[in-house]
Formats: sequence, C-alpha cells, structure tokens
Amino acid sequence: MQTVEKYDMIEFEVLSDGTEPVLKHCGEFSHCGDTADTVTPEGPADCKKASAFADGRGGYRLRFRPDQTGVWKYSIRTKEQSLCGEFTVTEPGEENHGPVRVSGDHFAYADGTTYIPFGTTCYAWIHQPEELQEQTLETLSGAPFNKIRMCVFPKHMPYNSNDPDCYPFLKKADGTWDVTRPDPVFWDRLDQRIRDLCGLGIEADLILFHPYDRWGFSRLSREESLAYLEYCIVRLGAHRNLWWSLANEYDDLKDKTLEDWDAYGETIARQDGYHHPVSIHQIITPYPKRDWMTHCSIQSGRIDKVTIWKKQYGIPVIIDECGYEGNLPFGWGSLTAPEMVHRFWWAVCRGGFCTHGETFHREDEVLWWAKGGRLYGESAERIAFLKELLYRLPGEWKAAVFDPETLPDADADETEGGNETVQQRMKRLIGNASGEYVEQFIEDLSPNMLKGESFTLQYFGHLRPVYTDLMLAEGKIYRAEVIDTWEMTGTLAAEGISGRVRLGLPGKEGIALLLTEM
Amino acid sequence: MQTVEKYDMIEFEVLSDGTEPVLKHCGEFSHCGDTADTVTPEGPADCKKASAFADGRGGYRLRFRPDQTGVWKYSIRTKEQSLCGEFTVTEPGEENHGPVRVSGDHFAYADGTTYIPFGTTCYAWIHQPEELQEQTLETLSGAPFNKIRMCVFPKHMPYNSNDPDCYPFLKKADGTWDVTRPDPVFWDRLDQRIRDLCGLGIEADLILFHPYDRWGFSRLSREESLAYLEYCIVRLGAHRNLWWSLANEYDDLKDKTLEDWDAYGETIARQDGYHHPVSIHQIITPYPKRDWMTHCSIQSGRIDKVTIWKKQYGIPVIIDECGYEGNLPFGWGSLTAPEMVHRFWWAVCRGGFCTHGETFHREDEVLWWAKGGRLYGESAERIAFLKELLYRLPGEWKAAVFDPETLPDADADETEGGNETVQQRMKRLIGNASGEYVEQFIEDLSPNMLKGESFTLQYFGHLRPVYTDLMLAEGKIYRAEVIDTWEMTGTLAAEGISGRVRLGLPGKEGIALLLTEM
Repeated sequence: MQTVEKYDMIEFEVLSDGTEPVLKHCGEFSHCGDTADTVTPEGPADCKKASAFADGRGGYRLRFRPDQTGVWKYSIRTKEQSLCGEFTVTEPGEENHGPVRVSGDHFAYADGTTYIPFGTTCYAWIHQPEELQEQTLETLSGAPFNKIRMCVFPKHMPYNSNDPDCYPFLKKADGTWDVTRPDPVFWDRLDQRIRDLCGLGIEADLILFHPYDRWGFSRLSREESLAYLEYCIVRLGAHRNLWWSLANEYDDLKDKTLEDWDAYGETIARQDGYHHPVSIHQIITPYPKRDWMTHCSIQSGRIDKVTIWKKQYGIPVIIDECGYEGNLPFGWGSLTAPEMVHRFWWAVCRGGFCTHGETFHREDEVLWWAKGGRLYGESAERIAFLKELLYRLPGEWKAAVFDPETLPDADADETEGGNETVQQRMKRLIGNASGEYVEQFIEDLSPNMLKGESFTLQYFGHLRPVYTDLMLAEGKIYRAEVIDTWEMTGTLAAEGISGRVRLGLPGKEGIALLLTEM
Repeated sequence: MQTVEKYDMIEFEVLSDGTEPVLKHCGEFSHCGDTADTVTPEGPADCKKASAFADGRGGYRLRFRPDQTGVWKYSIRTKEQSLCGEFTVTEPGEENHGPVRVSGDHFAYADGTTYIPFGTTCYAWIHQPEELQEQTLETLSGAPFNKIRMCVFPKHMPYNSNDPDCYPFLKKADGTWDVTRPDPVFWDRLDQRIRDLCGLGIEADLILFHPYDRWGFSRLSREESLAYLEYCIVRLGAHRNLWWSLANEYDDLKDKTLEDWDAYGETIARQDGYHHPVSIHQIITPYPKRDWMTHCSIQSGRIDKVTIWKKQYGIPVIIDECGYEGNLPFGWGSLTAPEMVHRFWWAVCRGGFCTHGETFHREDEVLWWAKGGRLYGESAERIAFLKELLYRLPGEWKAAVFDPETLPDADADETEGGNETVQQRMKRLIGNASGEYVEQFIEDLSPNMLKGESFTLQYFGHLRPVYTDLMLAEGKIYRAEVIDTWEMTGTLAAEGISGRVRLGLPGKEGIALLLTEM
C-alpha cells in the first residue's frame, strides 16, 4: 500500500487515450480512521474530491493532500476507467508542520507551530538556466528566508532581457498562447521548484499575474486567465508550501479591471479546497478589502502605515515590497543594508512582516531580485538575527498601537500648566485634527513595540536616544537587554528593575530593548 | 538733522504725563523726495502713519522704518503736544538689503537680493540668563543660520523648568497678567535681541503663541491676546528682520479656535503696515490656506510632502520643524546628523526650505533648541555647505515635480510589450488610483531636483546608485560635478557631455549631482 506523510502530496496517474479529458472532480478520498479496519467512510460529508489535470504529455494526473493520519480510501472515475484503492498516511516528519494559515493577525502552520514570514524576492528565478536555479536553491539553503515571491510568467524589466527556455503554454497556430495546452517542461519544473523550496522550509508565494511582460501573458482574456488559474489550482493546490499572490502590481495591468481581479480571487476562494493564503500586491493603491484575501501584500516604503493598514484590513500585513537592498538608479532598488534591516525591524515591531530583495548592479545582469543566484548584501544575516530572536520570544504577542484610551490619566504637565491629563490632551488633539493627519499622528505616536505576556520588545529605529524612561509594572521584576540590530548583539543592561527606571542606551540607530519578566 | 539708513528704524520719544495714553496713529511720515527742497508731500496717499506704544516706563515711543532714501518730514500729535521735523534717510549699508518678502515660491530681500531661509530653533533663548544669551549670539555668529524660531513667551517643557527673570507683562493685583502693562525690562531686551540678530543677518521668526506654558500666557482671552498682538505690531513692526509666527503648534492651544487664529492673522494683515512674513505652525494638521499667510511653516518629517504642500498652498513651504539633531528619547529630538543634513537637502531640492535645531542631552539642561548656548552637532557645517552651494547657483530655479504631462512620449517598454507610452502608462496608473495614494505616488516619483536656466541639481538622498542614466538636451554641453553632502566635496565627474550619458556615481547615500551647461 502506498504511504504518504500527512500534509504531503499523493499523486495518481489517470490513464487516458490522450484525446478525451477526464471528468472534473473525478477523485474521491475518504479517511478510514486510524486503522483501515475500524472505521468506514461515512458518506459525502467525509469525502474529499480532487480534479485531475492534463500533464501536457497526453496523460492526466490527480493529486491529493491528506490532513489526517491513517488509512484513506480513494476512488477515481473517468469516462474510461475506475480506480479504487487505499493508501496510508503516516505522521508528518520533523520538518513537516503542514501548510501555513492565517491565525489572527499573524500566521501559523497547520500543526500550530508558529510561522513568521521572512520573505525574499526572486521573481523570475525559475525562468533562468538550470545551473542558476540550482545556485539559487543553494543560496536559499543558507539564508534565513522562509517565503519567496516568484512568478509563474517570465519577467520583462531592466536586467531581464533574456528569454526563458520554456513557457507555461504552447502556442496556437496564430502565434497566440493556447491556455488549454500546458507545456509539461515548464510545469514539471515549477512542481519541482516548489518541492525544492518545501525541502528548504520555504513557502512559494506564487505570483499569478504581473505587468512586466513582452510575451502577452498579461493580456490574456478573462476566460483565458480563468482557465490558467483553474489549472494552477488543480495542479499546484496539493503542494503544502504554496501561497497565491494574484498579482504583482495588479493596478499596472492595463487590461484587467477590479471585476476581473475579484473574479480571480473568488475563483480561488471557491475552488482551492486547501485554502492557501491569498493576497494581491499593488503599485499604487492597495487592493480594497475582500473576503478572498487572507492577508495584505503591500508595496510601500511607508512602514509606519502598517499600523493603519492592520486596523483597516483586520488581517495580517506583509510589506512584500519595501524596496530592495542594492545600488540601482531606481527608487525601488537602492536601499542600504542598514535601511533594509531597519524596515524589517520596523515592520515586525509594528505587528507586520517584511520581505527582502537584492538589486546590486552586475554586468552579467544576474540580480537576486529577478534571477536569483547569489546574495551580495549585508542585510540577510541581520534578518536572520531578527528571525531567531522573534522565534525565541515566548508565547503570543501584539504590536502596541497608540490609543488615547489607554494613555495614563496623569497630568499633561508639558502644556498649559497641567490643567488636563495626557489622555484628555491627546483626545482633544485628535478630535480637532483632519483625516490624513490623524493617521500620520497615530502612526508617528505608535511605538515600534511588541508586547507579550512576559516581555516587551521595543525598537527605536532611526532614533538614537541616550536613555529611555521606563514605567514598568509595579510588583513585577524585569531584566533589560539592549539589542544592537546591526552588530547582532544583545547586552544585559539591567536586572531586577521595576517601576520607574531611567535606562541608559547606546545613542545610536538600530537599537532595540527587550524587557523580560524575571 | 537725524539720519537713518533706508530700511532701518527711527524712533521718537513722545512726552507724556504718564497717565494719558497717546492717540493711536499719531505719527505721520511723508517722503519729501531726494532733497527736502524739491518736493512737498502730496497728501494722505503718500503719508505713512505709525502708532506710538507705551514703553512701560511711563513714556511713549514711536517707530518708523523708511523705505526710500532722501529727506522725510514727520509730525507727531498727542493730546498734549505736537512734534514736527525732518530726518534724512541714507543709502543702506552693505549688509542691509531690507526686509525679506515672499517672491513667488521663494523669498527675497526688498532690494531684490536672494534670501534662502536656513533657519534654526532656540525657542526660549531670550528667557535665559544674560551670559547664556550672549553665548547664543556668539554661536550664531559662526553658524550658517539666517533665521531663528524664537518665542515671546517662555517655554515649559522637559529641560525647561527654570523661570525667566522677567515676563512680557506685569501682573494685576489678582495675580493674572495685565496685558496693558508691558514689562519694559522684557521688551527692551526683546528689541535688543532682534537688533543683535539683525546685526548677524538673521531673521527673527517670532512665535507669538505656544502651548508649552505654565504661566498662563496660552490662556489669555481673545481680547487680551489681541491687545498683546497689537502691542507687538506697534512696538516691533519697524524691525527690519522680523517675521511673525502666529503659533508654535496652534492646534495644541486648547482655548483657541480657528476663529481666534483667523482674528489674529487678520489683525496682523490689517495693522502691520510693514507686511512682515506671517505663518502658523502645527502639531498635527497644517493650518488651512488663508490670505493672511505668506508662507507655510510646517512640522513634519515627511519632507516628500513638500511637493504636495507647495501645490496645495501656492506659497513657499518651510519645514520649520523636521525633528532636531540630538539623542533624546523623543521622536522629535533624536535625529542623527546625516539625517538632519539629508532633510535640508531633501526639502531644498523639492523647492522647500528646512529649519535646524539641536537636542543633545545635557545634565545642565542647556539644549540649543530651547535655550541656545553652544552647538554640539555635526549638521550645522554641512548645512553651511549646502547654503553656500545654493547661493552660488546662477539665476532662478524651480523644483522639478513629477508630472505625467511632461513625460517623454517614448515607449513604456517595461510593461506589456511596449504597447503604450511612458506618459500613457503614468496617466493610466494615476487615473485609476485613489486619493492619498496618488499623492504618495507623485511624491515618490518627484525627483529631488532643482532646475535653473543653465543647471540641474539632483539629490539622490537615501538612495545610493552606482550610476545614473542622463538624458541631456542635445546641442548643449554639460559638466557634471558629484557632490558628497556629508564630506562636503564636489568632484568633477565629466565634462563636455551631451545627450544620453551613463555617469558613474559613488554608490553611497547623500550624493548630489550638479549638471552645469558649459
């Protein structure tokens, strides 16, 4: 009997004469309980269905990802044949925590293990020569990234003038793409690369559409786009480490409307039985909130706005494009390493997440952000440091948001002789202010701070105070660790502190303070 | 016969028995032409009036600032006496260019000389001990600043717990301020300090109200405030180097409404015959556009928004509070020197102006931003470098603003196979975008660039490209100078260039490029 790990993919080949497509939803999978003998499937409610897809070589395949251990029964029916059988689902391996899901304003694996996205960006790495793809994987194996933004379609951009050796579809006689004829070379590679990433613990954040196109993929009709999308869902959906990114820069695809994007989003929500995370990324205007979005994928250097976006959307916010570490003459590709590191800390300590990318000019045009290859920057190891620190933090946490309601009732003795409280003053200021400026004020006053049950992590960012005045809970005792985000050090600054304390700080940028209850 | 330089102040003492106030508008000044004998005053149209003010010592004084050379006649009438006479106005001295006025989106002295504001901030320097005031003046004499933000009323804030030795008013028997009884010690000092600043070529940007108050000045009634304001206008208006700042953080003064501020602004517009620059500074919401405002005085770290504010207000924009170079545990007082320098370049190259301040923690609590004293930072000399460079630029200039209308009609070959032009693409993107994001997009795409008749100054800010692709006017020949804003160097990078040129750059932050037609 075939065996497969829980959350892993089992695949069946469906014979066909090569002319007739199989029926949709032709596979049924029923869990038989922990042992095959004790429980019988109880009907359609327990029954999961899967569709087959044309493998492009005249055959059909059908994939399923079981979410329970034990014995499963299946039956697969086509016009020509009926297959039945059983397979065993074993306990997941040590590295297999299942798919990632949204959990509140953050993420978790299906088995409950914390997942904190630390993404990178290699838009067109699977469209490069084999050797370069292997190098990319090798680099990833030594890097901290656990999510990668990557496109199905190739990319046309500065530094991206080479053509890939294959495309997702074959062409019609008239030279246009035939979305009903997948190129098996392409899709087998994509499958393999998603599997390779899975082996490295990396979520494949698969970008389904983008505008940087000289081949015509961005101009497929809505029907063609839906056919392509359904193929992706059926073929790729059983991958454990898959996320759907409807678009890179949806608002720069000139032939697609919000109605189109909604149709795509709703198609995924309806047809993807595995409920992979779904987002859509913008060039100017973040996509309006929709039920099919599981999280926000935002392009912006305005990391302070994470606070507002979290409130507006009520779902996790990933700054998937905050600029890239590099030295190009473009605003999007010229961040210093300290600034990239800063943006990660900033996003994280505002309760969001951030994504890396690298764009150092090279005469051979192999830039990580598009083609993968090697990393040359200085931010990745610092991002690793942040990642390790976050994964070590105990329990759950929330980002602190500036909220006049929770301000102390103490005198606002700074202004007007103390005849109002801090809270009254802030409420008055905000009450009198006009829209966008209120947002900016709240963003400015919201600290970069995570609060857990037993700790507070505050990040000072570009500020460089020589001291900070703490108001610690009375009756609790804390230790204070000063973290240098660039030097990647943590230094004990005080132990046994409580109540009001003035704590010395290094007076440089990129400092964080971790207060832990002793 | 008394003589006075053009644009300087002439003052008359008006005898009084000390009980009766003089009439308002009791002085009339008529220009007699270049020599006293040739022209007779021609009536009210040519006649300028001035009011007298109580000097607080029982006497009255009357001030006038002539704007033409030659002989002037005057007559001063009170209930008790009538004074008449003549005085001669001589050519202004070499350093005397007259008062500063708004000229388009920038500033100029009355004689047409360029004035580019490079301000600093010492809110309460005149409320400190004499010796410290002298030190402040000494520091200013060696600093690049030609404008200073300073308050009439003392300041209550962290690091500002000391009381001044005198106040603008004396008190009533009930302990409240009597705005009709100016303290002569205070006002003589203020006059002297404005004169001292004038001697250093510094405009006194006098803040009339602010909320950081433990003495009650922020809670004067509207009538009291207007009486105080009229006193300021009559007493101080004839100073050549005076600007009016209605408020520091108007929207944090809890007893004042927009109607109050408008009443104050309109009073100045109506009564200040010298038409000093007038602004009002905010904590959250920039004051709505009013006719009485000559320029914007903005508190914000969002220097990118200069582009939008210039468009919205149509008057010069000064970022009068961009944060202070320092190391305090407050967001407003913890900028690094490179960041302060960056904000100056950023503001200037967006067609705005910026103001400096310093807040380094000191146990003696003498911080420049409030008390003056000494400068300890590293930004001032770099601001001097920028100032010298700007004053050297030939002719007039405008900041470049991203505008789809002026984009080249070339193919937008980045996206969708070049089937639209760059211009079409940008118009489409902006047309589809929603409000605040359009603003941000325009801010992001607007270069930090000044364009003159024969030069372009581009500032790369936090970006650090290793090259830039120039599209220079064909038929014109340029030289390129790479400016390191931190190292304060200018290095010849190319000469005799024209058309499309790729120019190497240092790949570090804080670089500017000056292209000059040869």
